[in-house]
Amino acid sequence: MMDIKDKIDAAAGRTPADTLFCNGHMINVFTGEINKQDFAVKDGYICGFGRYKAEETIDLSGFYVSPGFVDAHVHIESAMVTPAAFARGVVAKGTTTIVADPHEIANVLGIKGVEYMLSSAEHQLMNICFAMPSCVPATSMETAGAVLDPVKTAAMLVKDEIIALAEMMNYPGVIYTDADVMEKIRVAGRQKKRVDGHAPGLSGKYLHAYVSAGILSDHECTSTHEALEKLRLGMHIMIREGTCARNLADLLPAVNDHTWRRMMWCTDDRHPEDIIEQGHIDHIVRQAVNSGIDPVRAIQMATINPADYFGLIDIGAIAPGRRADFVLFRDLYDICLEQVFALGRVAGQSGQYLGEITNSALDCPGAMNLDIKEIDLTIPFKSSRVQVIKALENQVLTDCFTADAIEKKGEAVSDPNRDILKIAVIERYSGRSGTGKGFVNGLGLKKGAVASSVAHDSHNIITAGTNDKDMLRAVREVAEMKGGFAVALDNRITASLALPVAGLMSEHSLETVNQSMKHLVSAANALGSPLKDIFMTLGFLALPVIPKLKITDKGLVDVEKFAMTDLFV
Amino acid sequence: MMDIKDKIDAAAGRTPADTLFCNGHMINVFTGEINKQDFAVKDGYICGFGRYKAEETIDLSGFYVSPGFVDAHVHIESAMVTPAAFARGVVAKGTTTIVADPHEIANVLGIKGVEYMLSSAEHQLMNICFAMPSCVPATSMETAGAVLDPVKTAAMLVKDEIIALAEMMNYPGVIYTDADVMEKIRVAGRQKKRVDGHAPGLSGKYLHAYVSAGILSDHECTSTHEALEKLRLGMHIMIREGTCARNLADLLPAVNDHTWRRMMWCTDDRHPEDIIEQGHIDHIVRQAVNSGIDPVRAIQMATINPADYFGLIDIGAIAPGRRADFVLFRDLYDICLEQVFALGRVAGQSGQYLGEITNSALDCPGAMNLDIKEIDLTIPFKSSRVQVIKALENQVLTDCFTADAIEKKGEAVSDPNRDILKIAVIERYSGRSGTGKGFVNGLGLKKGAVASSVAHDSHNIITAGTNDKDMLRAVREVAEMKGGFAVALDNRITASLALPVAGLMSEHSLETVNQSMKHLVSAANALGSPLKDIFMTLGFLALPVIPKLKITDKGLVDVEKFAMTDLFV
Repeated sequence: MMDIKDKIDAAAGRTPADTLFCNGHMINVFTGEINKQDFAVKDGYICGFGRYKAEETIDLSGFYVSPGFVDAHVHIESAMVTPAAFARGVVAKGTTTIVADPHEIANVLGIKGVEYMLSSAEHQLMNICFAMPSCVPATSMETAGAVLDPVKTAAMLVKDEIIALAEMMNYPGVIYTDADVMEKIRVAGRQKKRVDGHAPGLSGKYLHAYVSAGILSDHECTSTHEALEKLRLGMHIMIREGTCARNLADLLPAVNDHTWRRMMWCTDDRHPEDIIEQGHIDHIVRQAVNSGIDPVRAIQMATINPADYFGLIDIGAIAPGRRADFVLFRDLYDICLEQVFALGRVAGQSGQYLGEITNSALDCPGAMNLDIKEIDLTIPFKSSRVQVIKALENQVLTDCFTADAIEKKGEAVSDPNRDILKIAVIERYSGRSGTGKGFVNGLGLKKGAVASSVAHDSHNIITAGTNDKDMLRAVREVAEMKGGFAVALDNRITASLALPVAGLMSEHSLETVNQSMKHLVSAANALGSPLKDIFMTLGFLALPVIPKLKITDKGLVDVEKFAMTDLFV
Repeated sequence: MMDIKDKIDAAAGRTPADTLFCNGHMINVFTGEINKQDFAVKDGYICGFGRYKAEETIDLSGFYVSPGFVDAHVHIESAMVTPAAFARGVVAKGTTTIVADPHEIANVLGIKGVEYMLSSAEHQLMNICFAMPSCVPATSMETAGAVLDPVKTAAMLVKDEIIALAEMMNYPGVIYTDADVMEKIRVAGRQKKRVDGHAPGLSGKYLHAYVSAGILSDHECTSTHEALEKLRLGMHIMIREGTCARNLADLLPAVNDHTWRRMMWCTDDRHPEDIIEQGHIDHIVRQAVNSGIDPVRAIQMATINPADYFGLIDIGAIAPGRRADFVLFRDLYDICLEQVFALGRVAGQSGQYLGEITNSALDCPGAMNLDIKEIDLTIPFKSSRVQVIKALENQVLTDCFTADAIEKKGEAVSDPNRDILKIAVIERYSGRSGTGKGFVNGLGLKKGAVASSVAHDSHNIITAGTNDKDMLRAVREVAEMKGGFAVALDNRITASLALPVAGLMSEHSLETVNQSMKHLVSAANALGSPLKDIFMTLGFLALPVIPKLKITDKGLVDVEKFAMTDLFV
């Protein structure tokens, strides 16, 4: 971070600039103008416009120059790589600032996890800001690796790198004025930090209650109607285009001459394949322009709007004193980035990643404390009917139904013929390896088993399969890798990916993880699963805040009743 | 301040509202829409839209309902009344929030003066936010009542009521990286508070340097060209329409579909007469609409824009959780306020003030420490030519010329025939009563003298007149009143106004002060002065940061050379 004294000396021309960028057509996000505008950079920050003495001159003739893009809300963990690998991958797509919510690692490792992320974010070309997770754990019907109470939350919110209290998913807690929730919001307010919202479908008086707490953003809108109601109440709307949740097409009609200034883009959760093949915020900007949004406006929503919303005065624009983060492209109506500059240095070329991955010097603490020998996956047969989770591809929601249970030697077992498979969630934090067990439909395995340590939001180990032996084999593999994904058949591992950082992230590149994921999905498909990504589907089956029937380490959860429920009916 | 828990209970409808406001046409500053919209208020804050159970219902049929207006930069002292009297007077004009810069009282009393203002702001219907004065004293060529160094500034910037570092007038200090200036800006940055600018005419690399310090507003633009240059660099532009400086007409062409969102209104310095007869921010909004600005846009610039700029999430809109500050009018194209509500209560009716003035419980410390007997106004005759300050009506600038001095008994004396009057500035803080002496042209007195304790920025006592006896008589009156204005003729006071609060403010109402001012100006006119307000003209003659020739307690100042200069040439 350059001190203002040095910035001023450079801007006044008293110290020579490093680089003068000439002849580019600069998009001025403040005034909406596009003008040929030279600008100078020193030590990674913009000095000013016009002619400056510089050690080097770079000619940008033929290029449009836009400020680098901002992802207003993202979980790095969803890309299954460390902040360093994420930064290297995503900056190449033009995203030079992200507001990361380390919600997943916080559920696994608590404050230590958040601190690992903060430490990982240092010395990256990408500007990684953080929002402090507000809802860890998500519920008391599961065992997470940590509990973040208001005191711990307050201690983190004073840090400069933490610019907001992250998505307040516990909207019942807000509406019914839960004491801890109130205190976390008050603390953020005292620190003059934003409180981000997460209020899917909330409307009317309950939405008024939520807003009156000072929660002034939302990234969960799925319709123009919903977005407009929230905008009218003063919420800033983050239009999300992730891997699973894609709201761009539905929300674009809400962007108009009045509302656009309180709207911005985010990805929330985006998998490596989509980042690599489609892009990141650049993809959203492209899509928006293709759908008829004025390109300058789409860029403003990707740059100055999130900067203004979060009060970040050193990004979001090409202007004196701000980070020299900018992107170059030739066609305003088909924005393909040819080069990305971060802190004045080339960070990406034609969407390709440059530079090495520099992971955190801080070791991420282990988060795999279980005893394989103690795990018991058997389900004693108690009655002939069981509740079955119905997994839905590409949805976080599940459905449910009841079915006849198959008995074998006094146990209820999987029935691949009806696609009713055993599913289990094994607690991985306390060492007691408590296990919730049930049945799931929709995964489609005809043989073998899968296991994963990515199971929202507590990220215990989840496994499903046709037989206990393969399930246990897959679980053991995940445990031995300190986290990750595994596919097992006939007591052998046919594919795996290690995610040793908190059981959530690899230290390798997005491309490497993407290749492994393709291999894993092929292996699962070879077992009969028709799903495009069985691990993504699996990962949401343990999330007890989204209806209908879910499973945690404590057992089955009837989400609509917000209560545990019996497997046998 | 209502706690969020109570706000949420009210918004959710669990506790009954105080008042339901029905059938008004609400201006939604977020979406630009005007819709018939009921809304409820509880304990001074908005609960939400639609039907709420309430103890009382008020029908707003036929009215437009706009959020209350915001003055983004104002010196209360310029209205010569206390914050309490200012609030009562200005809220009736629809201004429900101001960002006050107590620069004048800070020059007189330092931190104690600022604390008096903070204390006075409590328990007012108007929401009075403060910006911490950044430049006290303005120069070392005068004696102010206080020096506010970075340590004192930092101690104040942590307070919630102080939302910004006020206008950084010392732009040379920024551009040349003065250590104290740098430190004040850094402190504001650490507190996540805005640093307001004041950079008249600054352009090019020096402006880049100023902006790169993180100073992101300006209220000193006098041309569209200047405003656009600043907007392009990311500055927010406050369009000022005060009593002396009026920039609205010149800057309106800079307001366009892209720039408007970074623009807002302010008054800076506005005298009682203008407030009473023309209005306050309402006057600016009216003028803007008359000049063709869309009324909703003019209102957005008066409400949500300053709220967003300063990060004030509890004002600027009619929305859940925000202060129930709003105004009613019938014609969108001729906005005459019929009623003003502040914290849900009627605070003004047809522009008339309601309620009492509740001044601060804190006594304002005295600031009049001089010994009349020690004051020597004689100017020993040293040569035949003197430098003369040429006062220009309605301008802060002066001109200057040299003239023959009149000798009488070894002294240089006033010559009313040529309108060359003696002028003196008497230091009022240390008790040593050091006096700077010189001559002034343009005041027009043919007999008698005037004196004032309002003399920017150090506010020592300034006097001018045809003879020493009347000058001393006027000074004595000002001193005995603990500050104010006086007109003396033949050793008698013909008119006076006491400003006992720091020698700058009256505890009486705007109307009372306005009446006294009219009387004072008549009395000065009776002495031959043609000026519309001789005290305003006088008040700027001691301001050594605005060219050309000025006078302080230390003597004559050549502002262009930024140095003291001799009276005799």
